[in-house]
Amino acid sequence: MFYVGIDLGGTNIAVGLVDEGGKILADMSVPTMAERDYTEIVKDMAEVSKKVIEKAGVSVDDVAGVGIGCPGAIDNAGGICTYSNNLHMDKAQIAMEFRKHLDLPVNLENDANAAALGEYEINGNGVKSFVFITLGTGVGGGVVLDGKIYRGFNGVGAELGHMVIEQDGEMCSCGRRGCWEAYASVSALIRMTKESMEKNPGSLMHEEAEKEGKVSGMTAFVAAKKGDEAGKAVVEKYFEYIGVGLTNIVNIFQPEKIVIGGSISKEGDYLLKPVQKYVEEHDYNRYMEKAKIEIATLFGDAGIIGAALSAKER
Amino acid sequence: MFYVGIDLGGTNIAVGLVDEGGKILADMSVPTMAERDYTEIVKDMAEVSKKVIEKAGVSVDDVAGVGIGCPGAIDNAGGICTYSNNLHMDKAQIAMEFRKHLDLPVNLENDANAAALGEYEINGNGVKSFVFITLGTGVGGGVVLDGKIYRGFNGVGAELGHMVIEQDGEMCSCGRRGCWEAYASVSALIRMTKESMEKNPGSLMHEEAEKEGKVSGMTAFVAAKKGDEAGKAVVEKYFEYIGVGLTNIVNIFQPEKIVIGGSISKEGDYLLKPVQKYVEEHDYNRYMEKAKIEIATLFGDAGIIGAALSAKER
Repeated sequence: MFYVGIDLGGTNIAVGLVDEGGKILADMSVPTMAERDYTEIVKDMAEVSKKVIEKAGVSVDDVAGVGIGCPGAIDNAGGICTYSNNLHMDKAQIAMEFRKHLDLPVNLENDANAAALGEYEINGNGVKSFVFITLGTGVGGGVVLDGKIYRGFNGVGAELGHMVIEQDGEMCSCGRRGCWEAYASVSALIRMTKESMEKNPGSLMHEEAEKEGKVSGMTAFVAAKKGDEAGKAVVEKYFEYIGVGLTNIVNIFQPEKIVIGGSISKEGDYLLKPVQKYVEEHDYNRYMEKAKIEIATLFGDAGIIGAALSAKER
Repeated sequence: MFYVGIDLGGTNIAVGLVDEGGKILADMSVPTMAERDYTEIVKDMAEVSKKVIEKAGVSVDDVAGVGIGCPGAIDNAGGICTYSNNLHMDKAQIAMEFRKHLDLPVNLENDANAAALGEYEINGNGVKSFVFITLGTGVGGGVVLDGKIYRGFNGVGAELGHMVIEQDGEMCSCGRRGCWEAYASVSALIRMTKESMEKNPGSLMHEEAEKEGKVSGMTAFVAAKKGDEAGKAVVEKYFEYIGVGLTNIVNIFQPEKIVIGGSISKEGDYLLKPVQKYVEEHDYNRYMEKAKIEIATLFGDAGIIGAALSAKER
């Protein structure tokens, strides 16, 4: 059997037809146009799904289900996006709407959970405890235990970006202060970069930002790699914040493997090595085998593959 | 069948014979005398176990196993206490030593994990996700998922007290700075009480400490209940710290139930209500059913019952 996997993002809807082993047979992407009513977005998702199934040369009868990874708070059992800031969704009946256009079983999943399942399937080596972290606009997390997505009793679990690491600290998008997301996301990195640029008018970061036309998540990294001291300090502090949250996750879950994805993960070893070192030095576990920390390999595909496999799991 | 449950503490060794349903049929307690070589302590545990089995009028042939809850880092598979600060243990072969004196299958468990299983059995109502927190000298935690203790891949998981809530904050016993334990334990409360007493020479806390002969975890509570403003401020800040960590746990696990034990939990509703309110206000989950937070009911018995049931689980 085959599964449709949909990665619903604020910018694009990415759809793929996936086999039982997690291989993408065909895919397609269309703009989300997130300002539309959600029923329009869902209709597009269904239409693109039909096209992808056709493109793969597969009969709809051989498609066992559809998995949708959606940002926000998901009522998995009900197939409802109860709230999504990026997509202006509020109690959106996504599964029900989808089936009006393509009548297949639908599993609606939080996007980070879906990506976690995708990374687990491809890079998890069947470990019993697996954590996926995305460092992007926000900090998302997904936990896969015994090969299944851990959602908590109400479906909203594994919001790993929303643990406070600095009581009364920076404001977070969730309304709390001091969440990991407010220190380890790209948005946080940009804030820290801007703060440092103000204090260091001679820093290379100014030049790099000018070249790029804006201060981005790259600015401090590029300057640091060229030897800029202020840039290095920003990047080092940022790594430390990533390390603090990862160490918390290690102490809580002692997962066999942690995989780091999201746009920042493209830094590869430049990010991974110092972060591994931080966790190694701060982990509560001094005597037993340690959690492995790796960089994601699937990037964009993790969302499609994981969503499809979440439909299989369901 | 029956199970022996042993709660090995820094002060006492508490032993009980427990039936399949978690009921204690007979029990006994002897001093640990923690400064002794661990082989001596283990010998006592075995001898007291024999006495408790006899006291319950049960044949050793009807005892299926022994569970031992031990503070520190536990190698569950090997039956080894790899390290315990309180008990001066270092790679202590507890299970092997025990069987020299009483040859029954032994399951060695972290003490907080064992207590979590005990509270789950009696107060868990079969929920699929359950978290137990002890607020004592340290902050211990245990996670029970699908009725089983969650240990992580290396057995050292669920160290919930060792998540940083204040980056670069107070020194923790584990070597990190800013762990939840350094803010929500009784030791932390005493530190905060002393700090406040220094700044508030007119506070009732001085009088209460004098009565008790020392500053204890009770000092600020007693003064606060008598209307002392400085005492109230200490207690409120302490509740806030408990709330921060609990909210993190809720956002990570979204467990159906959290039970709070340890000496401070004897404050009952005086502790529970403000802490519930804090979590309610800060929880990431705004739309789905919320985690229930309760006070433990078993107190000391949780360790014995949970240890016994961990032997059954194994």
